[in-house]
Amino acid sequence: MDLTKLGAREAARLIADGEVTSEDLVTACLERISAREDEVRAWAHLQPELALQQARERDDQRSTGGPLGPLHGVPVGIKDIFDTAQWPTENGAALDRGRQPETDSAVVDRLRAAGAVIMGKTVTTEYANACPAVTRNPHDPAHTPGGSSAGSAAAVADGMVPLAIGSQTAGSVIRPAAFCGVVGFKPSFGRISRAGMYLQSRRLDHVGVFARSVIDAAVLTDALVGHDPADGDTVTGPAPRLAAIAVEAPPVSPTFAFAKTQAWAQREDDLAECFAELTEFLGDGCIDVDLPQPFEAAIELHRTVMHADVAQTLAGHYQRGRDQLSKQLRQAIESGQKVLAVDYNRAVDWMDVLGAGLAEVFENCDAILTPAAAGTAPLGLETTGNPAFCSLWTYCGLPAVSLPLLQGTNGLPIGAQLVGRRGDDARLLRTAHWLVERLSAADDQS
Amino acid sequence: MDLTKLGAREAARLIADGEVTSEDLVTACLERISAREDEVRAWAHLQPELALQQARERDDQRSTGGPLGPLHGVPVGIKDIFDTAQWPTENGAALDRGRQPETDSAVVDRLRAAGAVIMGKTVTTEYANACPAVTRNPHDPAHTPGGSSAGSAAAVADGMVPLAIGSQTAGSVIRPAAFCGVVGFKPSFGRISRAGMYLQSRRLDHVGVFARSVIDAAVLTDALVGHDPADGDTVTGPAPRLAAIAVEAPPVSPTFAFAKTQAWAQREDDLAECFAELTEFLGDGCIDVDLPQPFEAAIELHRTVMHADVAQTLAGHYQRGRDQLSKQLRQAIESGQKVLAVDYNRAVDWMDVLGAGLAEVFENCDAILTPAAAGTAPLGLETTGNPAFCSLWTYCGLPAVSLPLLQGTNGLPIGAQLVGRRGDDARLLRTAHWLVERLSAADDQS
Repeated sequence: MDLTKLGAREAARLIADGEVTSEDLVTACLERISAREDEVRAWAHLQPELALQQARERDDQRSTGGPLGPLHGVPVGIKDIFDTAQWPTENGAALDRGRQPETDSAVVDRLRAAGAVIMGKTVTTEYANACPAVTRNPHDPAHTPGGSSAGSAAAVADGMVPLAIGSQTAGSVIRPAAFCGVVGFKPSFGRISRAGMYLQSRRLDHVGVFARSVIDAAVLTDALVGHDPADGDTVTGPAPRLAAIAVEAPPVSPTFAFAKTQAWAQREDDLAECFAELTEFLGDGCIDVDLPQPFEAAIELHRTVMHADVAQTLAGHYQRGRDQLSKQLRQAIESGQKVLAVDYNRAVDWMDVLGAGLAEVFENCDAILTPAAAGTAPLGLETTGNPAFCSLWTYCGLPAVSLPLLQGTNGLPIGAQLVGRRGDDARLLRTAHWLVERLSAADDQS
Repeated sequence: MDLTKLGAREAARLIADGEVTSEDLVTACLERISAREDEVRAWAHLQPELALQQARERDDQRSTGGPLGPLHGVPVGIKDIFDTAQWPTENGAALDRGRQPETDSAVVDRLRAAGAVIMGKTVTTEYANACPAVTRNPHDPAHTPGGSSAGSAAAVADGMVPLAIGSQTAGSVIRPAAFCGVVGFKPSFGRISRAGMYLQSRRLDHVGVFARSVIDAAVLTDALVGHDPADGDTVTGPAPRLAAIAVEAPPVSPTFAFAKTQAWAQREDDLAECFAELTEFLGDGCIDVDLPQPFEAAIELHRTVMHADVAQTLAGHYQRGRDQLSKQLRQAIESGQKVLAVDYNRAVDWMDVLGAGLAEVFENCDAILTPAAAGTAPLGLETTGNPAFCSLWTYCGLPAVSLPLLQGTNGLPIGAQLVGRRGDDARLLRTAHWLVERLSAADDQS
């Protein structure tokens, strides 16, 4: 059995049953990293002994009859913008080199409480923004893995860990998931606490997850969701039980609304072909939806909020060390410094207006189907790719998942993005799981 | 018995007991208005028959054994920025002349549910901003009543109604209450729904109330507080039972913290003398508190948020009819148009920082004691007075009450402002009631 191919839920079950130890699993992952890291460059901070020590503790807990969490013994990679007391947290930034937090972020706390092994810190782009990092696409190292959660997406795609944590302000989970051919899931705004995470935009930042199946993404998210007084934007109310609902069969076959959005003009040809095939396959189960004219402003509205927030977040860094920031980030900050409060507040108000418009779309469908990016991962490492296919959904706080269902003519993965009603994360994942199973069954028949 | 001198709680009790009818009370109030309105000019829209008709309905309800609300039959004046389906709502603005809403605002809904009689609409300054309206101070018509809730403060002070509704973005409840010699109360931010009210700043606007006693202000506020999905900033949680707690004796004598704040430099001489006497009277029960240097920025931070919000709210009005706006309001809008998003967001973030600093002050006192304004009502109607003594508390969302305890050498009222811990409105009113009673007892002895 190749343990690096195990899904997270399956791994947790095997560890709980005593058929595999956490130490075996972590060792296999470390060997994979050792073999592949020179090429992929997914890790910012990794101390094998620290991961193995946690694994042995998890095994000891089990063997002495201790309680087992839903991720007991399963290793998870953490984007290097989440504070960790045992590893530095450098935010991919020259100005934060050697930065060592004293406490763990809320996400890391929750993972430990669920029994996970913190494998180490994965590479992020500089302050989770657009300037590319060193990570390469595991399918072809000449291509970008996407960003900003570059290391997390690449590590999960390459079998280095079954699960990883990322974050999304524009398309930083969905796009690298699509480029690396894994499942990326960004829950509704406010589902997961961002306390102890580098927050580039309080209005837009979401925690997201990477896995190799929808159910694994659901299991990981279940361990993370919940109100946290330290992040005033987290929602209250009972947990959504994502994994339990995602495995259920939908009461009727789901309906998809295919939305090209204004980003469609930037698509690549083979992506358009893939989506033509997919919508044909879905037949009556897929309707076309044209978002009206006001939605054309979404990318610009999103950028207004993001740039102004980044300018405020990094005001001190810009003042004392702008020469150590990338040119791209400096430009974003300088653009944000000029945004007027009236334009910013209008952009914030429009979140609700466009959100109400999207809520109406969900009267007639279970999920919106739309590309996760313009095509396959671009050649070269000079860009992390175009976030235009993600901005609208992030801006409105809707849950989104990228599914590795399609392939470009160059053999690289293309992601199909499903977007759900805000707050209805469980239904989105159930719909996503249904679609993956349906296509897999069709493949088996052909 | 002069019914126009009756307090609201007493009036509601007499009506419930059948000793007075609502029609008698409303008739007495209308007669007072008829006699005094030419001089005071407190009313924007008043139709005597419409008020009398409600009063007769309330009397019918009682005589047929219907349920009685806590304000059953008691007339209330409504600032003309709260939508009313039976009266125009013109926001004191030339551009909104003849504007007739189709539905009542949330505040008016709540008043009706409490059994109140909606007396009519009181004069507001233009869009609840700084440009003076026609209302005069009932103590001396050569002086301003303050603003923006000019008509509400003047009407209650003059015996035209026992209660009235106002709003505060800077000092629009506390200051006119002080100038007119009535109790003005602005609860904590988020206590009362602003749905259907002209909202000049979502961040800063509070609904407030006017009455002639602390207990009456508490009874009126009790009828208004509560979460409203139509105003997303209203807080959840059980109602604070203000009137029930305000009448209780404090477990120990309250401690006051006398805070001059950076506005003190703008005080008038006789106000300083009044406060010296008051703090001497309180003796050991009053400590001095110096707010540290960062608080000096409060007035400027407040103005940054207010001007930017006003510029956004009135963007359309400015575009299509700026020549119909006052010069003062145009200048505020134009100042707001230039505010940068980074400065705006920093000013919003500082609300929490200064709020946390103030929370520490309340570790050592029950209420902050501070002037409600710089002195007595200025002579002339060219200004509504200086809001500098109110900005900080409004900005931080703290509950504040102005008490008519002092008097200038010109015989006009001076307000003592008490400020409470955010969310602890009941304790503030209990402390205020205690102070009023204590001073009244001392007066009786001397």
